[in-house]
Amino acid sequence: MTLLSALTGDSEIEAVLSDAAQLGGMLQFERALAEASAEAGWISQEAATAIGVALDGFEPDWAALEAGMAQDGVVVPTLVRQLRAAVAEPHRAALHRGATSQDVIDTALMLQLAQTFDLYERRLGALLDRLETLRRDWAGVPLMAHTRMQVALPTTWNAKLMSWAEPLKRHLRSLLAMRQGLLVVQLGGPVGDRASFEGHGDAIAAGMARRLDLGVAEPWQATRDPIVALGGLLALIGGSLGKIGADVTLLAQNEVGALLLMGGGGSSAMAHKSNPVNAEVLVALARLNAGLSGTLAQALVHENERSGAAWTLEWLVLPQMLVATGASLILADRLLAQLRLGETKDKSDG
Amino acid sequence: MTLLSALTGDSEIEAVLSDAAQLGGMLQFERALAEASAEAGWISQEAATAIGVALDGFEPDWAALEAGMAQDGVVVPTLVRQLRAAVAEPHRAALHRGATSQDVIDTALMLQLAQTFDLYERRLGALLDRLETLRRDWAGVPLMAHTRMQVALPTTWNAKLMSWAEPLKRHLRSLLAMRQGLLVVQLGGPVGDRASFEGHGDAIAAGMARRLDLGVAEPWQATRDPIVALGGLLALIGGSLGKIGADVTLLAQNEVGALLLMGGGGSSAMAHKSNPVNAEVLVALARLNAGLSGTLAQALVHENERSGAAWTLEWLVLPQMLVATGASLILADRLLAQLRLGETKDKSDG
Amino acid sequence: MTLLSALTGDSEIEAVLSDAAQLGGMLQFERALAEASAEAGWISQEAATAIGVALDGFEPDWAALEAGMAQDGVVVPTLVRQLRAAVAEPHRAALHRGATSQDVIDTALMLQLAQTFDLYERRLGALLDRLETLRRDWAGVPLMAHTRMQVALPTTWNAKLMSWAEPLKRHLRSLLAMRQGLLVVQLGGPVGDRASFEGHGDAIAAGMARRLDLGVAEPWQATRDPIVALGGLLALIGGSLGKIGADVTLLAQNEVGALLLMGGGGSSAMAHKSNPVNAEVLVALARLNAGLSGTLAQALVHENERSGAAWTLEWLVLPQMLVATGASLILADRLLAQLRLGETKDKSDG
Amino acid sequence: MTLLSALTGDSEIEAVLSDAAQLGGMLQFERALAEASAEAGWISQEAATAIGVALDGFEPDWAALEAGMAQDGVVVPTLVRQLRAAVAEPHRAALHRGATSQDVIDTALMLQLAQTFDLYERRLGALLDRLETLRRDWAGVPLMAHTRMQVALPTTWNAKLMSWAEPLKRHLRSLLAMRQGLLVVQLGGPVGDRASFEGHGDAIAAGMARRLDLGVAEPWQATRDPIVALGGLLALIGGSLGKIGADVTLLAQNEVGALLLMGGGGSSAMAHKSNPVNAEVLVALARLNAGLSGTLAQALVHENERSGAAWTLEWLVLPQMLVATGASLILADRLLAQLRLGETKDKSDG
Repeated sequence: MTLLSALTGDSEIEAVLSDAAQLGGMLQFERALAEASAEAGWISQEAATAIGVALDGFEPDWAALEAGMAQDGVVVPTLVRQLRAAVAEPHRAALHRGATSQDVIDTALMLQLAQTFDLYERRLGALLDRLETLRRDWAGVPLMAHTRMQVALPTTWNAKLMSWAEPLKRHLRSLLAMRQGLLVVQLGGPVGDRASFEGHGDAIAAGMARRLDLGVAEPWQATRDPIVALGGLLALIGGSLGKIGADVTLLAQNEVGALLLMGGGGSSAMAHKSNPVNAEVLVALARLNAGLSGTLAQALVHENERSGAAWTLEWLVLPQMLVATGASLILADRLLAQLRLGETKDKSDG
Repeated sequence: MTLLSALTGDSEIEAVLSDAAQLGGMLQFERALAEASAEAGWISQEAATAIGVALDGFEPDWAALEAGMAQDGVVVPTLVRQLRAAVAEPHRAALHRGATSQDVIDTALMLQLAQTFDLYERRLGALLDRLETLRRDWAGVPLMAHTRMQVALPTTWNAKLMSWAEPLKRHLRSLLAMRQGLLVVQLGGPVGDRASFEGHGDAIAAGMARRLDLGVAEPWQATRDPIVALGGLLALIGGSLGKIGADVTLLAQNEVGALLLMGGGGSSAMAHKSNPVNAEVLVALARLNAGLSGTLAQALVHENERSGAAWTLEWLVLPQMLVATGASLILADRLLAQLRLGETKDKSDG
Repeated sequence: MTLLSALTGDSEIEAVLSDAAQLGGMLQFERALAEASAEAGWISQEAATAIGVALDGFEPDWAALEAGMAQDGVVVPTLVRQLRAAVAEPHRAALHRGATSQDVIDTALMLQLAQTFDLYERRLGALLDRLETLRRDWAGVPLMAHTRMQVALPTTWNAKLMSWAEPLKRHLRSLLAMRQGLLVVQLGGPVGDRASFEGHGDAIAAGMARRLDLGVAEPWQATRDPIVALGGLLALIGGSLGKIGADVTLLAQNEVGALLLMGGGGSSAMAHKSNPVNAEVLVALARLNAGLSGTLAQALVHENERSGAAWTLEWLVLPQMLVATGASLILADRLLAQLRLGETKDKSDG
Repeated sequence: MTLLSALTGDSEIEAVLSDAAQLGGMLQFERALAEASAEAGWISQEAATAIGVALDGFEPDWAALEAGMAQDGVVVPTLVRQLRAAVAEPHRAALHRGATSQDVIDTALMLQLAQTFDLYERRLGALLDRLETLRRDWAGVPLMAHTRMQVALPTTWNAKLMSWAEPLKRHLRSLLAMRQGLLVVQLGGPVGDRASFEGHGDAIAAGMARRLDLGVAEPWQATRDPIVALGGLLALIGGSLGKIGADVTLLAQNEVGALLLMGGGGSSAMAHKSNPVNAEVLVALARLNAGLSGTLAQALVHENERSGAAWTLEWLVLPQMLVATGASLILADRLLAQLRLGETKDKSDG
């Protein structure tokens, strides 16, 4: 763990996105492919069994995988070589038969995303509960509204807390909807048209989807809009939480005093300070996610049947967005737990 | 019209987003507010009638509106003064009663967006028709696939054209879905809680929605995620069209020759050239929209009940995205009309 | 003038970047090219004279230029046709001889940038004067410092004003330095290697530079780092002014009261408000410029000897950055003129 | 090491930016502060000696540092507590006397950047040597130029290689210049005005600069333009290398064949492929750096004397840009070593 990730990281999401977890997803892919291929008559049942045995006992050579990654730009060619070496002949060629690197990596990503969505949904739900509790506890408490950085007119904490919750409810609905559209098997073969499966592709894809608890879809290897749409949603979640952070930093200013923070951050030079650290980091992560969503969208310009450049760009951007979003959800929860009503000082008419 | 907008503009969308059209939307807002307010008993029927008469004959003083914009950061205070001067007393105060600048501007934007969506949906439909026609015309025609900028294996034009169409179908569905969630009345009053309508706010909002053919929603003035989500969708549309552009520039390279372009662009120095101008501009607009979507997402960090900074940022970004997306749809249509099959030269084994 | 540009525009810079001004720069290019070409013996003196006469009386056909822009992706082929039609034979071929569209457009841009830099430097100088005057006027006035959105310890207005001025001094120096490295003639011919000038290219470029008061440089048509570096500087200027804007919005909060703003913006609903409009727009423009600088940098990936996509992207981004930066300088000047010391209320111990 | 960093990472830069290296820089800061403070008479010589002894033997409690980071948003309060516990009394208060967290962190960053610049400069030099060697080896070899993705006219490898080298020469000069302006001590005390040093601040800063081999400057804690300017330069370096990558992917297309790549990447499905992995990753990193530079520029809007949000955003963005730039330099070197002249097939007149 690095120091910075103690502040801005998310160990649960990081675990879901780890190399080991990704490799696990890739092995799930190869197992599901073998089983569905046998079911469809594309490989023999014996081959599927032999592949299952090999996967059960597989121990990756990580150093070779790293070298393969640097050489090929994807880890799969080396991984498939290692896997095939573990499969008893004459079944080696049946492993990965018809598939391509991208099928493995994109489908493994979907399995990782499914777990990530579980965490997000649970955390969003808990956050909404906490906001609802605050709304009950602070029912009837007035709050001075501020527009354009100036005192406006009195409003209520009820209105403020609802305005914090409404976007999160929308995002929760979007996550649930995205499970349908995004979390699908990728199976296209070398050039994404399933021709390598010689007519069995659709059946195999359906069988894999059932086994992996994913949806089915046409091959999407070069049309990355669902991935970029996910990035957009992450920016919305991070941004809506960043707005809460910004509001808290403003309302907890000493001169405003509408909020107090229990257990704020300390300073190496000013003992009296109680810094709104969680709120500030929410703003930072919102700005990071916003910018990254725009960079991720550059990956839509994906050359022909597979762009190494655009795809690598996704790998550089999406995981940090997933972690930043997860961290934002954790920090928002921590921040809401710190909130106490201040003795509001803004009695001026502005 | 500027020279650049002859290349990258969209005169239809620009008209929808013009000052005059925005002002028209603002007048529609005030009319609907007056009528719905009378219906709800918040102003008298006489007042609503007087306001209607004033709006019918209203001639804006544009110079004063510009000066007001520079002074107040929004045009509405000056506009309301001009409008009230046109209303017969004692009904002046009934105009805009309970509302705030943002209600006017955001609702007018929704009316502009509804027209924009009409254009987008029509164009996307036409584009999908054109792709379907190409798919029929080029049924059975082989195409060499390229992955990672290298010759891969043969595929078909059918697969290529489907991969161009699939994302556009998704975007069309998203536009239709967004009509529900995004195109809603904004009515919140000064601080966004409808308190200024003294209990009549929900009824008035519903009455306005009916009149303006928009949805109803809680006030959303400080929670801009639906606007940013629109920006995300625009980046997806622009990006999916940019991918078509990139594919065309690659397939129409002289050495590849899988495509020919009828009527490509000329050069001031090389008479033999036929430049894939429409395709290139699609890529440029895709990259612009991608980057802008990330900048728009910065506006999610919206301070308290109204952020002048974040809101102004939206105004600077969203309109150009709307135009760029519209222009991309036009250019994609032009580009598809230019496509002719080349005598493919890529018979090499790669 | 659009309403929004009354708030966020800059009519002086917009004039420098107008179609008419760009065309003027292009004519200057062709004149300098003809004269320097005659000087170098690449065309005859008679041809140069005939070209000069044609340029003197040239009246563009704007509609045809727009059509040419849409057709060719650049306006130059049509412009050169129009210009040549105005040149007496046998000198028509001497106009634009050896040059390409990009030479014309990029060099014209440099002439526009030179004027833009004049405006920036003058405004930055005036801003620094104003800050220095404030520093003298407010010498010795204490100010409560705020770190991490909390009251910290007392500091002085002297320190605050110095911290506002220091970056602007750096940016002024950078602008002066950039005059050397950026404001250079572009002369490369069709593929950017000056081969089309058959050995006369360097001499012609030098002669043009002298006439146009620009520097000389190797052809840079496909290496756009100086343009992107300019975008970076614009983001720095806009951002440093946005920081001033952010500070002012915070210090002018009613509850803080360290600053008062004379003539702040009004509200359509809350008569008591005095909104820090200029300060807020500075923040919005800073965020716009920041995001755009990142999008502009995407244009560095410029395919081979000329990328229509990357170049068009520059056209879509750089001008709005130039205007936004100019507008920021104007707004900052206005904002500083509005500042008055408040009766600071932050006597709390924090 | 993660799999992805085997492809896109830079172990040397990652080491320079590691937690351990950062901590080392922080200890250097405290040592230099103590020595310079003693020299200036701000603490006693005995205190400086005691501090030096404590620093010599210091063993950090990493778990506590992580907890402190999460609590305070900066690691320094906890680190200073740990350090002070190691100093013999009565000298504990002399450690860190007058300084603040930001002084430590920003100055440590400068020490890390100095080492990073060393690596960049060495690698850029090597790259320029390699380009010069290629230029000599391929002197006189013709190359078909391509403009707007179409065959243009013949040029030479000399021109191409010069166009690759020129920007790198500019960037190397910029790095050298930035050593002056960027690599400076940060010493401001709690609110950045050196008041906490009671008149000794300038002398101490000068003494520290001498010891740390850094420049002196006014405190810059809230004016982050030099950091953002560095981000801009990193985007230029990454982008110029990305342009080389893009050119190579285009020239090494099978149908173009102007370049061959020795040892390209393999595919899990197509044994015949030789993928331009290094070139593609250069493009991906260029796009990443471009986007990140725009996000980093958002950090210029830095509230008052210290913004936790803007500063944290820097931490999230700058290190990955430094690594991406370093990785680009490594990959570019590898890529150039792979280049072989193809038997050019583009003899068509286009």
